Amino acid sequence: MGGTPPLSPLAPAAFPDLPVIDGVEFATAQAGVKYKGRTDVMLVRLAPGTAMAGVFTRSATRSASVLDCQAKIGGDGTGAAGIVVNSGNSNAFTGQNGIDATRAVTAAAARALGIEEDRMFSSSTGVIGEPLPHDRITDKLYELVGNLQSTGITEAAKAIMTTDTYPKGATAEVLIDNQSIKIAGIAKGSGMIAPDMATMLVYIFTDAEVDRAVLQSMVAATADLTFNCITVDSDTSTSDTLLCAATGKSGVRVTEANTGFIDALRGVMLDLAHQVVRDGEGATKFVQIHVTGAHSDADARTHALSIANSPLVKTAIAGEDPNWGRIVMAVGKSGAAADRDRLSIWFGDVLVADKGWRCPDYREEQGAELMKDEDIHIKVDLGLGGGVATVWTCDLTHGYISINADYRS
Amino acid sequence: MGGTPPLSPLAPAAFPDLPVIDGVEFATAQAGVKYKGRTDVMLVRLAPGTAMAGVFTRSATRSASVLDCQAKIGGDGTGAAGIVVNSGNSNAFTGQNGIDATRAVTAAAARALGIEEDRMFSSSTGVIGEPLPHDRITDKLYELVGNLQSTGITEAAKAIMTTDTYPKGATAEVLIDNQSIKIAGIAKGSGMIAPDMATMLVYIFTDAEVDRAVLQSMVAATADLTFNCITVDSDTSTSDTLLCAATGKSGVRVTEANTGFIDALRGVMLDLAHQVVRDGEGATKFVQIHVTGAHSDADARTHALSIANSPLVKTAIAGEDPNWGRIVMAVGKSGAAADRDRLSIWFGDVLVADKGWRCPDYREEQGAELMKDEDIHIKVDLGLGGGVATVWTCDLTHGYISINADYRS
Repeated sequence: MGGTPPLSPLAPAAFPDLPVIDGVEFATAQAGVKYKGRTDVMLVRLAPGTAMAGVFTRSATRSASVLDCQAKIGGDGTGAAGIVVNSGNSNAFTGQNGIDATRAVTAAAARALGIEEDRMFSSSTGVIGEPLPHDRITDKLYELVGNLQSTGITEAAKAIMTTDTYPKGATAEVLIDNQSIKIAGIAKGSGMIAPDMATMLVYIFTDAEVDRAVLQSMVAATADLTFNCITVDSDTSTSDTLLCAATGKSGVRVTEANTGFIDALRGVMLDLAHQVVRDGEGATKFVQIHVTGAHSDADARTHALSIANSPLVKTAIAGEDPNWGRIVMAVGKSGAAADRDRLSIWFGDVLVADKGWRCPDYREEQGAELMKDEDIHIKVDLGLGGGVATVWTCDLTHGYISINADYRS
Repeated sequence: MGGTPPLSPLAPAAFPDLPVIDGVEFATAQAGVKYKGRTDVMLVRLAPGTAMAGVFTRSATRSASVLDCQAKIGGDGTGAAGIVVNSGNSNAFTGQNGIDATRAVTAAAARALGIEEDRMFSSSTGVIGEPLPHDRITDKLYELVGNLQSTGITEAAKAIMTTDTYPKGATAEVLIDNQSIKIAGIAKGSGMIAPDMATMLVYIFTDAEVDRAVLQSMVAATADLTFNCITVDSDTSTSDTLLCAATGKSGVRVTEANTGFIDALRGVMLDLAHQVVRDGEGATKFVQIHVTGAHSDADARTHALSIANSPLVKTAIAGEDPNWGRIVMAVGKSGAAADRDRLSIWFGDVLVADKGWRCPDYREEQGAELMKDEDIHIKVDLGLGGGVATVWTCDLTHGYISINADYRS
């Protein structure tokens, strides 16, 4: 790939200060799976009693570690748990060899941590179709276990990066009955897919005490409104994984009724999701697309994603061209219900198209001015019903082509 | 847009010699709808008795002229017919103004040709959301009628171009009972969508004698296997129009049983469809994707289009990178049935991935060598059933970004 890519112009100013989450410890190592001179394995130890929830790619060609996580995530084990993640090789589309490699890593990691195998989760991210050199990972396990520390989350965020231009972290604190619950999360991803089938991986930790089934339902619902509402290039990884671990160490019990906790969890997930978009390959603009007035929320989401994934909309934004005609096109092709003569479009607060035609008061200069911003807000009203959705994306630039049209090796 | 784009490297060597189709006459004019110094209006007169068939965009935001054509295409009129087309303005998303403009143009053109209004078809292609200066077109109608000639098809192909880098034509001749039937077609399109919402327009003429309903069914079925199997960027125009006129002047009657005619029609349509892909914005590679072994033809098509529309597959091809992992990804995300461990992939005749993993005999050098060709053939077998599909696309290059990220004006 020829060296480290330059920092995304949309990168946050700094990695946030992430709090220690009681019951969670991290370690990283340089295993040399593919990359040299950097960490590429992360190990997490989770205290006994930790509830685990997960959301995974729906790809029909998902990786061995995704299938392994899915098999384990509904289990009723309550012992200590672990997560082991490597970057540089996704162990995807590797057949029986891949299944064996995942089993070798999780079995060895479980042994090293002294936990049950069905509580040991794993992810792999990087090139696909190459055999995972799993012994390089297992060789590092005892070193990793020896280095576990509660303050290691920032280093963990770095170890899971592939072509990310910055590590991604987010945190929130919520008070329930004047008792504090902390949430901290890390993610990697530079587009839904980075070169070589890199992946979006997300790990969120909280000291809340939550039933496994309740946590799973909260995490799944929140993922639908955050990570499942972002797109860089419409391409879906074979390895996308989100794991959420609730250690219960705060002693504060959370149920479905605790909207404060759900809001905080959503805030962390949305922050991480936005950071992934802001690190989208070649991105120079962060774009929010808000659709209202659709027949249903599902229809609104279909329209919003059709706009967000349209190469012509994305290149127009890259060129700072207020080309709202391409938004009309993307709505028209989406397949969800739309009535051309009820459609209205805004750039920021400026009404551009009103009920089926260019707004008489709109002047191209207004749109052109708004397009110069780094953050672009597009709103579309269908005028049909109460369905709403918001999705986030980035523009499509020469940078994306340069990153992805390079040779792999 | 800054001048004429350079000729596509995939352009045919020359515009073909198209035969005169008895009963069809063409004229072109410089109306100055938007472009200066070139023709931008085409008028076609079709002899009495001509059967008309049409296939149109399914966009929910389709243009006024598309809606007008759709209202007329099933009609049982048998008088003379006409087609009037302008480039430079698509008259799409222009509300009542657009409906009025289409009516003004078709009414005036019908009067000028002395035909019924419900036999007068129109298309418009170019920028959207701008009022169509229809008087510039109607002002030229009598000049156009005076210049109608049976040999004008090449000039017609040029008048309908927007950002096309070459005019597109194709022809076939078929013998039925030793009597000749001729087919000639022209098209415009530089991607499913060219900048400023330009359009794919196709006009096909034949001297076969065909019942309207039979012609409609032939044209619709053939469009599904040709024009509906190409994609440049997954974006669908609001103005896509295919009209087919059968004048009957050969005196040779064609029915559903004449597979020779259907094959010839398909050959012309496929040729034009391929020419549109070869003129895809920024294209440097012509890519055929053939999917076999799917549960159904529809599933095969879903997989093939998922591969063809994947930005990561398209950029890999642009970079001459035999990155078959991205094909696995695109199959996995398509939503149609797939089994990772039955999936096989070929580049040309080289088996790359065999039943779920990299073929042991495959060497990256083989794939890299094949990727240097201008025409790339990808085959995917799902190993599930008998469903097949073939689609055609081009690569995604810096050229596409340059063309589409420019300012509109």
